[in-house]
Amino acid sequence: MARDASRVETFTDGVFAVVLTVMAVELLQNGPARAGGRELPDALAHAWPSYLAYVITFGIAGQIWLGHHNMWRYVVRVDQLLVVFNLLVLLFVAAIPFTADLLSDNLRGSATEQRLTAALYLGTVLGESLFFNLSWWWARRRRLLHPDLDPQLARAVSRRLLVRPVLYLVAFAFVFVDPILSLVLYLLLVGLSLIHRPGDLPRFPAEAGGEVSDRGR
Amino acid sequence: MARDASRVETFTDGVFAVVLTVMAVELLQNGPARAGGRELPDALAHAWPSYLAYVITFGIAGQIWLGHHNMWRYVVRVDQLLVVFNLLVLLFVAAIPFTADLLSDNLRGSATEQRLTAALYLGTVLGESLFFNLSWWWARRRRLLHPDLDPQLARAVSRRLLVRPVLYLVAFAFVFVDPILSLVLYLLLVGLSLIHRPGDLPRFPAEAGGEVSDRGR
Amino acid sequence: MARDASRVETFTDGVFAVVLTVMAVELLQNGPARAGGRELPDALAHAWPSYLAYVITFGIAGQIWLGHHNMWRYVVRVDQLLVVFNLLVLLFVAAIPFTADLLSDNLRGSATEQRLTAALYLGTVLGESLFFNLSWWWARRRRLLHPDLDPQLARAVSRRLLVRPVLYLVAFAFVFVDPILSLVLYLLLVGLSLIHRPGDLPRFPAEAGGEVSDRGR
Amino acid sequence: MARDASRVETFTDGVFAVVLTVMAVELLQNGPARAGGRELPDALAHAWPSYLAYVITFGIAGQIWLGHHNMWRYVVRVDQLLVVFNLLVLLFVAAIPFTADLLSDNLRGSATEQRLTAALYLGTVLGESLFFNLSWWWARRRRLLHPDLDPQLARAVSRRLLVRPVLYLVAFAFVFVDPILSLVLYLLLVGLSLIHRPGDLPRFPAEAGGEVSDRGR
Repeated sequence: MARDASRVETFTDGVFAVVLTVMAVELLQNGPARAGGRELPDALAHAWPSYLAYVITFGIAGQIWLGHHNMWRYVVRVDQLLVVFNLLVLLFVAAIPFTADLLSDNLRGSATEQRLTAALYLGTVLGESLFFNLSWWWARRRRLLHPDLDPQLARAVSRRLLVRPVLYLVAFAFVFVDPILSLVLYLLLVGLSLIHRPGDLPRFPAEAGGEVSDRGR
Repeated sequence: MARDASRVETFTDGVFAVVLTVMAVELLQNGPARAGGRELPDALAHAWPSYLAYVITFGIAGQIWLGHHNMWRYVVRVDQLLVVFNLLVLLFVAAIPFTADLLSDNLRGSATEQRLTAALYLGTVLGESLFFNLSWWWARRRRLLHPDLDPQLARAVSRRLLVRPVLYLVAFAFVFVDPILSLVLYLLLVGLSLIHRPGDLPRFPAEAGGEVSDRGR
Repeated sequence: MARDASRVETFTDGVFAVVLTVMAVELLQNGPARAGGRELPDALAHAWPSYLAYVITFGIAGQIWLGHHNMWRYVVRVDQLLVVFNLLVLLFVAAIPFTADLLSDNLRGSATEQRLTAALYLGTVLGESLFFNLSWWWARRRRLLHPDLDPQLARAVSRRLLVRPVLYLVAFAFVFVDPILSLVLYLLLVGLSLIHRPGDLPRFPAEAGGEVSDRGR
Repeated sequence: MARDASRVETFTDGVFAVVLTVMAVELLQNGPARAGGRELPDALAHAWPSYLAYVITFGIAGQIWLGHHNMWRYVVRVDQLLVVFNLLVLLFVAAIPFTADLLSDNLRGSATEQRLTAALYLGTVLGESLFFNLSWWWARRRRLLHPDLDPQLARAVSRRLLVRPVLYLVAFAFVFVDPILSLVLYLLLVGLSLIHRPGDLPRFPAEAGGEVSDRGR
């Protein structure tokens, strides 16, 4: 049931590329330029939640792509269920622009609107991280990973990957206390993971040397 | 007339990536956030057919991509007609978001509207599956498949691939009896094929061993 | 100044994938489902020019992609100007959905509207074919093609590629006589080229044998 | 922390492909065909800033893609920060259609509108060029480049890459004098770089010979 992992990656990259640019298209089509009845400087300033939604979506989707990139480096074969789990990850990833836009539209709304849209947004990233963990667990279980991958390392990765859904769950629970605080905490987590790389997989021993020849595809 | 199959795959993956994300873009641009005059929780709840259309389109397009992935693993060369047949598959695949959206908009409509949109939708997936079969048949006939592929296995794949259009045809016929029942049956088929993998090609003998080196592109 | 041709192909494939699906997105967003005030069967039937525009755009862009695929198989290196010429090809390709949509909207319009939109459409494909020829000519001149490519064959390809802009120019001139006839002629040309493959490059000698190993990327 | 550079390229190419086609989609969806109340020839002529925005965005994004292509040829490994810097480049690249559209909408506006939108546009390309330089600097510092790359050459590239943000900064400063003149200067710079290739990296020694085999991926 072995299949080429590279095609799964190409396909996944295409979905991520669209997700990253969708918010920019939204800015273009429904952004300040289309807001009638306002002076331009005012219209541009008033649209700040749209810019925030764009930057946040870019950051989140970029971080998930980075995690995907890290994990799939170790995958040498794919089976049907791994592809299905990957599709489910993408199902949630592709919904991020929608929930991020809902959220940004309601940041100035009532407490109910803030809570509902923050919960939807965090539910989306939570769903993504759960299926992401599932795909790693399945790849380990079905021996679809590179045989040289140290089992101890694989277990460490499993533990580390679990951190993300747990933190998202905490942020999700916090929504019912204070939605804005919950989002701020969540963004801190994302920012930390981009800099301090908790989502990064440990170094792959086989790559420690002069892997320049890898590049000579 | 041999051509690189990998470029056909990259191009096909691009089309699938857009198709999978189009429904999410539609949710973003014409979804509950844009529905004026309703309270947010109500607007979100009222939009359930849009979410259904998103999940179903994702499931269907994901399943077709999986089938494409499975089939094209065996293709080592392409000729002009195989590329044309593949383009025709993509012509129907790219129309799925449109027909799925029509369908979801009319699930609460009159019997005529339900019937018409269900027939259009099932006609789209039927057309896709017919050209999919045609491309497999052509690849076999013109010896574009991997020479190590067991001819008996290739015949088994041909029979198995035929199941899909036949089942779609049955679902299509059922539309004239009860459109909702017909769709439920159809979704059951898709769900089963994702789990019980009737669309999966049998294991490729050459891949049974340690194909780890395949990965070292 | 040698560069990897494969990345130019990936990028080009991405542009083509978006172009192919754009018309389907347009159907989804501004199609019959959004046409208020009409019964659904009537709205669906009335939208036939949109379906025509979708199928034609798919056919045209598919044919151009096929030609690109054929030509770039022979390219082993790229220089800056070849990439710039390829970008200019893509500039016209990406404009095809816009001009095809204008055309389909005005097929039921006045003679002036028909003529103007048909001229714009044919001008777009003419521009594309000119820069396509230019990129082939440049690749030959700068010796960016595979060294095993028979020079006589390369000259034959050059002559054959010139047929397309010449025919488009004829169709373009015909617009001023009868725009509908001009389009019918043009579509016949495209259909013929998909079946009788005048745009297909002759067989590449090095690929005549067992190129199965090519596939083992 | 070595990772496959090719996947970063595929992903980047996807983002660029969407960016290049977004303006054409915008033409399709909000262009002259949708402008009610005007005769078609008049509507088409009146929409000239949209065509200009399309061609300029295509030119700019094409030029940046070319620079990315040139730089990443030398990258043999990636680490987390290089990917993050590349994501930041893409964040600005994906915003180009939005700012270019704002700019083209306000070319006929008041002096304040011209200045504001020109500043936003130039700020976007300035941000992109800064992170582009940062990613090259980081790749050099962390020895992620091809080991055969001559250090003297790498330094020359660094100096040359710095020219772009400096020129953009000059154009940015000029906005406050005369926005239209500033844009004309900027477009001249882009045009020159496409022809005279100041953004092109010097020839890679290892590629000087017969790199035909490079192509046999």
